Amino acid sequence: MIDFTGTYTDQYQLAMAQVYFLKERHEQMTVFDYFFRKIPFNGGYAVFAGLEDLIGILENLHFNAADIAFLRQKGMDPAFLEYLADFRFTGNLYSSCEGDLVFPFRPVLSVEASIIQAQIIETLLLNILNFQTLVATKASRMRIAAKDKTLIDFGLRRAQGPGGYYASRAAVIGGFEATSNVRAGRDYDIPVSGTMAHSFIQSYDDELNAFRDFAKVWPDNCVLLVDTYDTLASGIPNAVIVGLEMKEQGRHLKGIRLDSGDLANLSKKARCILDDAGLHDVKIAASNQLDEYLIRKLQDEKAPIDLFGVGTSLVTGQPDAALDGVYKLAYADSAPRIKLSETMEKTTLPHRKQVFRLHTGTDLAGAEVVALADERKIGQMHHPFDSSKTMVIDKYEKEPLLHKVMENGRRMAPPKKVNEIARYCRKQLDKLPDAYKRLDNPGIYKIGISDRLKKERDRLINEHKIESMNTKLNKI
Amino acid sequence: MIDFTGTYTDQYQLAMAQVYFLKERHEQMTVFDYFFRKIPFNGGYAVFAGLEDLIGILENLHFNAADIAFLRQKGMDPAFLEYLADFRFTGNLYSSCEGDLVFPFRPVLSVEASIIQAQIIETLLLNILNFQTLVATKASRMRIAAKDKTLIDFGLRRAQGPGGYYASRAAVIGGFEATSNVRAGRDYDIPVSGTMAHSFIQSYDDELNAFRDFAKVWPDNCVLLVDTYDTLASGIPNAVIVGLEMKEQGRHLKGIRLDSGDLANLSKKARCILDDAGLHDVKIAASNQLDEYLIRKLQDEKAPIDLFGVGTSLVTGQPDAALDGVYKLAYADSAPRIKLSETMEKTTLPHRKQVFRLHTGTDLAGAEVVALADERKIGQMHHPFDSSKTMVIDKYEKEPLLHKVMENGRRMAPPKKVNEIARYCRKQLDKLPDAYKRLDNPGIYKIGISDRLKKERDRLINEHKIESMNTKLNKI
Repeated sequence: MIDFTGTYTDQYQLAMAQVYFLKERHEQMTVFDYFFRKIPFNGGYAVFAGLEDLIGILENLHFNAADIAFLRQKGMDPAFLEYLADFRFTGNLYSSCEGDLVFPFRPVLSVEASIIQAQIIETLLLNILNFQTLVATKASRMRIAAKDKTLIDFGLRRAQGPGGYYASRAAVIGGFEATSNVRAGRDYDIPVSGTMAHSFIQSYDDELNAFRDFAKVWPDNCVLLVDTYDTLASGIPNAVIVGLEMKEQGRHLKGIRLDSGDLANLSKKARCILDDAGLHDVKIAASNQLDEYLIRKLQDEKAPIDLFGVGTSLVTGQPDAALDGVYKLAYADSAPRIKLSETMEKTTLPHRKQVFRLHTGTDLAGAEVVALADERKIGQMHHPFDSSKTMVIDKYEKEPLLHKVMENGRRMAPPKKVNEIARYCRKQLDKLPDAYKRLDNPGIYKIGISDRLKKERDRLINEHKIESMNTKLNKI
Repeated sequence: MIDFTGTYTDQYQLAMAQVYFLKERHEQMTVFDYFFRKIPFNGGYAVFAGLEDLIGILENLHFNAADIAFLRQKGMDPAFLEYLADFRFTGNLYSSCEGDLVFPFRPVLSVEASIIQAQIIETLLLNILNFQTLVATKASRMRIAAKDKTLIDFGLRRAQGPGGYYASRAAVIGGFEATSNVRAGRDYDIPVSGTMAHSFIQSYDDELNAFRDFAKVWPDNCVLLVDTYDTLASGIPNAVIVGLEMKEQGRHLKGIRLDSGDLANLSKKARCILDDAGLHDVKIAASNQLDEYLIRKLQDEKAPIDLFGVGTSLVTGQPDAALDGVYKLAYADSAPRIKLSETMEKTTLPHRKQVFRLHTGTDLAGAEVVALADERKIGQMHHPFDSSKTMVIDKYEKEPLLHKVMENGRRMAPPKKVNEIARYCRKQLDKLPDAYKRLDNPGIYKIGISDRLKKERDRLINEHKIESMNTKLNKI
């Protein structure tokens, strides 16, 4: 059993927290930004997911008796342990809407909390948001490839342990209709789906008897798996027999499922055989190592597949397997903070910030600007790393994207249901111009920074460079 | 909170289970084999992990009130729900030792249970074993690359949700010394490790003060992160100041950590600077997107790194992200069972089976033979898919690899601790000839099948082919 208590974190968060506490710096107010640097799957956008889970967990976060006992055994300071025993998250969260499309280098979410709280929640926050955003993004790509066909998540068996639970949720946010995962269905009110495995048919001496038994017990939800022995010679002919028997009884065979072989070819042949038998409304489902590219290929070949079952590549977000989301300090002790790097791309954006989406009415400009939180008039934006590139943006409407979703550790609105978030995602995706939705070589959505943010960042970079020079000189 | 109750499964398991129950076939005894077809990471072996977790979960598996209420709401049969409310796993498990090296196409574990029980546990079993075996295998590759250097898991923030909890366990089995994951440390008695993030230093106005505060609170476990502003100009010089101050106080700076840039070059320069200051025993830790190939490269370049921190690639098993483990029916209702496929590689091996490792004293032959469970005299083995290839094996000792670990749903021995399993893994790996341990193009460990198993398989294939032909003929 895995519950999200205080030890669901990295040891260094607690090591730092103890320093903050013993040095009486722990109540310092800070702002941390959650953002990522690379869109997964070489895509043009990512789908933000995991927020509602995160809020629910943060509202209840505490160190339980087992946590405290373990940390005591590890030699943590007794006064600090007393603090942890009373720990609650009482900060504020400013976040993009769950299901919205998000882009690199701009805050997806900002945490405003005491430094000790903000630090202790870091690992948990990254663990939840990185993974669900990865999977929702992958699901959304499959949704684009599958067009109006049905998509069902079959991934739990190949998922990374209980990560599969969150994968099923994120899949629906990204555009899947249902899941095989019963637990996710139970807890997130997601439609569950599933009929039979090869073992069911193998356990009978005869495929036809297996099909008949299943049809009797599940007359309204009968999808027959046809490739246990020989798809065309045995599976489909037997399915036709059962389909016709059901028809005679006023019932209806819902579908057949292909799980191996050349799915384009087999689905075309299956469609012909079913149609020839008058079973026009029997659907064809297909599964077997599918991903967005294979789905697109099947669609391009006009394979008459009505439903795609997707497992491994969806729930593990293959081949990336992780979103590179990070959580960086932007403000502490009444001052903006920066982390430098040899590469400008890894230098952080200091200060409390807001992100604005640029548009004209319903037409997206394909650009967002990151500004200081109190900025309102933003006439131009700069490329974040290439100072030669600027863009005049005064003509656009500017929609703020970070909304306060937690205040003093409590949620600001009732939890959103998964299907509501999925609808929101669909709406946002419909608005996004096609160029950004291409599976390969998508258009690049622009993220810029405001004049004032750029000046602040550059000022801090220079200050630290001078300091480093002095350290080096003093050392010599 | 995710607990492993009965709904931690795929819907189709329950759909099939209801058929078995209502048709009164649910008490049929079956054997299912767990095996995989492809070694992850193009490696020469996999490390089996997850067994102790699986046994613990199976001992307590049940459907709770929320599960039953949900399934009732979904229209499951009332008599079947009553059965589920009393469900317990009472089967037998025959398994490879956790931490042993395992190879494709041979049973890693076999479940002997009533068909309804064996089916209901399938998803759970695959979910746990596939993922931990993936990560333990990845960890073992890093262990090989890192030679005698220390390896620490930093992955929780990039892990696939709570999958990270199991990843940390599997990492230790594969050869990691410690984890940053406090929860895994608490529950699995794994050493936890961690010191500071960039944010700690950023939150101070001055890097040196940040280092000094940390050293005061953690004098015995002080590893300073040196790349927040400028590794060579600021981070290392400040670390040297603190290291010398600690030395004066009779303390000892444990290490510095490099987290960006050219780690080979920086570690060499850092070693020189530390040595010049007389800080010879200050260790150098390195992190930043490491995997087995980067670790090997750093070792080849003789980078003086003492400790590697590895995150994403370890805990997500990049780039594979999943082990393709499957669970196939081999025996039911007193008869062997087979699943056919267009490709011989996807045709299953029927019957109750045993796997024997071939060796001469302590010398492994690099081969195993899969035989019927009651076979003892096995003079030759056949390539499982290429009938032209055979190998005479009568001269080898044959060590049976599948051991009964659960009987009637109860474990046969007390749980093994993670470090005990890790030691066993290390021992097995030491025995394996180097050719199979190469990261690239490893030697191929042979898996063969016995005469009797081959005959049984081929007989069943022919039977089903004749049956399919008859189905087709009847249809015409």
